[in-house]
Amino acid sequence: MRTRRLSRIRLSDVGELGFIEEVSRRFGGAVRPGETGIGDDAAVLPSPAGKVVLSTDLLVEGTHFDLDYFLPGEIGFRALSANLSDLAAMGAAPVCYLVALAAPAKTPVALLTGIFRGMARAARPSGIRLMGGDTVRGERIALAVTVMGKVSWKGAALRRGARPGDLIFVTGAPGWSRLGLALLSRGRPKRPAGWQKEAMRRHLTPVARWREGAAAARTGAVSAMIDVSDGVLPDLERVLAASGAGAILDEKALRLSPRFREAAAALGEDPLASYLAGGEDYELLMAVRPHRYEAFRRAARAFPAGATPIGVVTARPGIAVRRADGSWMAGRDLPRGFAHFSPSARDSRRRS
Amino acid sequence: MRTRRLSRIRLSDVGELGFIEEVSRRFGGAVRPGETGIGDDAAVLPSPAGKVVLSTDLLVEGTHFDLDYFLPGEIGFRALSANLSDLAAMGAAPVCYLVALAAPAKTPVALLTGIFRGMARAARPSGIRLMGGDTVRGERIALAVTVMGKVSWKGAALRRGARPGDLIFVTGAPGWSRLGLALLSRGRPKRPAGWQKEAMRRHLTPVARWREGAAAARTGAVSAMIDVSDGVLPDLERVLAASGAGAILDEKALRLSPRFREAAAALGEDPLASYLAGGEDYELLMAVRPHRYEAFRRAARAFPAGATPIGVVTARPGIAVRRADGSWMAGRDLPRGFAHFSPSARDSRRRS
Repeated sequence: MRTRRLSRIRLSDVGELGFIEEVSRRFGGAVRPGETGIGDDAAVLPSPAGKVVLSTDLLVEGTHFDLDYFLPGEIGFRALSANLSDLAAMGAAPVCYLVALAAPAKTPVALLTGIFRGMARAARPSGIRLMGGDTVRGERIALAVTVMGKVSWKGAALRRGARPGDLIFVTGAPGWSRLGLALLSRGRPKRPAGWQKEAMRRHLTPVARWREGAAAARTGAVSAMIDVSDGVLPDLERVLAASGAGAILDEKALRLSPRFREAAAALGEDPLASYLAGGEDYELLMAVRPHRYEAFRRAARAFPAGATPIGVVTARPGIAVRRADGSWMAGRDLPRGFAHFSPSARDSRRRS
Repeated sequence: MRTRRLSRIRLSDVGELGFIEEVSRRFGGAVRPGETGIGDDAAVLPSPAGKVVLSTDLLVEGTHFDLDYFLPGEIGFRALSANLSDLAAMGAAPVCYLVALAAPAKTPVALLTGIFRGMARAARPSGIRLMGGDTVRGERIALAVTVMGKVSWKGAALRRGARPGDLIFVTGAPGWSRLGLALLSRGRPKRPAGWQKEAMRRHLTPVARWREGAAAARTGAVSAMIDVSDGVLPDLERVLAASGAGAILDEKALRLSPRFREAAAALGEDPLASYLAGGEDYELLMAVRPHRYEAFRRAARAFPAGATPIGVVTARPGIAVRRADGSWMAGRDLPRGFAHFSPSARDSRRRS
């Protein structure tokens, strides 16, 4: 065994139990007094003050990722980021995560530990800890990630709650993930540089905005929040549907960077459509009460990803975008979702 | 659509979103003020007093269940029972559950709602509520169930902690699930009666011992606890390994019922081996401190499944079974795990 190369060792060689022990040793979160981590029937932690926030995602090989296309670490990084983003969208602080993994017996252990290493890397900045899980046999790799977070008693930022007059903010720069996908779908560049590097990073290792989400919720200025994992427009539509409102967006306000425009041009993609309907960015969209705008602005100054006001909530239903040339775009003219990596990926990201 | 028979409607007809709405309406848990259930980025609940207990399982078609073999409701019932059993083994009271489901687009909606109906049926007695999840496309059905429970600050019952002199108790009557499997593997009886009915019920809709687990932990008499999902001996071995101890069991104490012996004889199974190594019963095994035995006995009187003292923890490592004829069975002579429905099912039940 010792002389076999790591990459040759299969899951069936070490067994599920052996694999769990290795994951626990290498990636298991620190277990504090009074807690129980990996290795018992369930994880035990002190109840956080306030409220608990729970989210679970299931990622399936062939639907959400392809091993020819993603490195194992990227699969893990994206999987945990997607879950951290769900916590962020509630304004919750990350606490712990559990991972249930299915894999064929012949899967190289190095591939599976690579997935866990990617999750651990995505976990590090927030300190969220791996506290439990499950490893089972299956014909294809499937990864069920569950996260627990916490919010204060005042509570979480929901999708509903946006009111006419609220300002609409978006963190960071949505659209890059879409450009990364467009780039990768032409074959992964060997030595990416400049915008290529940025686009790949944003698609392959997207960073969830948990700092921004929690800080924004604490201001008391946020009336509604969602992560734009499906794209700015589809997810804004969800907020508006839940809130019984509409919105006007302003193209000039989107602040599309020269580098973003350069990338879009090189890839033959419409930069506005990429921004508004690209998806998989894990940025946050927030509706902000105008009379509390100052508190929000102060908090937003410390957002690592920044926040841009892109429009306003209206009483009139529907979304209208005022173009840079003064014309209006609405209804069927609005950019719709792109075909993602897999035809079902878009649908599959919808959560209950 | 109206005129199509329910069984003809496919997941692709209603879409993931439509399916999630139906599940939420029909099976979603009651959402109390200040809580957020299905339909936002994550579920939000008040933090329970004490500690939170979390467990997640992934069940995969072909590994853990086969649609030719289980009814959809049975798949759901077993899936939630397995998770409730993990909570029970910690002495935790059930609070809420999340379900992430993968399924092919052509899957009949009735099959998927049948799975959720089974979970709802298993959920009802404890009041555990469905609060969130995810529905995605996948080539085969996969079901990731996450449960949250709560324990008091004094804490959970762990696998480690058994000490020499502790009494070993088992709830209910392990082994029936194994007999149910043996029966079903010969073809599902059309009109089961008598022991057949019992064996099928115990295999297809096993009831988790959450009442027993929580009540036992409250007595302060339980030094270690585990659910015997892999069988009494394999799971007792885990407790003993974690506790650095051994055990002596007494065949006469097992109280194998005449009906159980009748079933085993009819199926050509060894009743003792079925009891000790059958698995998938979701009974609890508890080590009980002798000086607190009275408190435990009083609590155990109210256990719906009862509890039987089957042996004692010893300082000497290993497990020895005193047979009814006075002979001893130990080491390699002890009954080992059975081949389950799938060759990988045993391994696959091991949890981190």
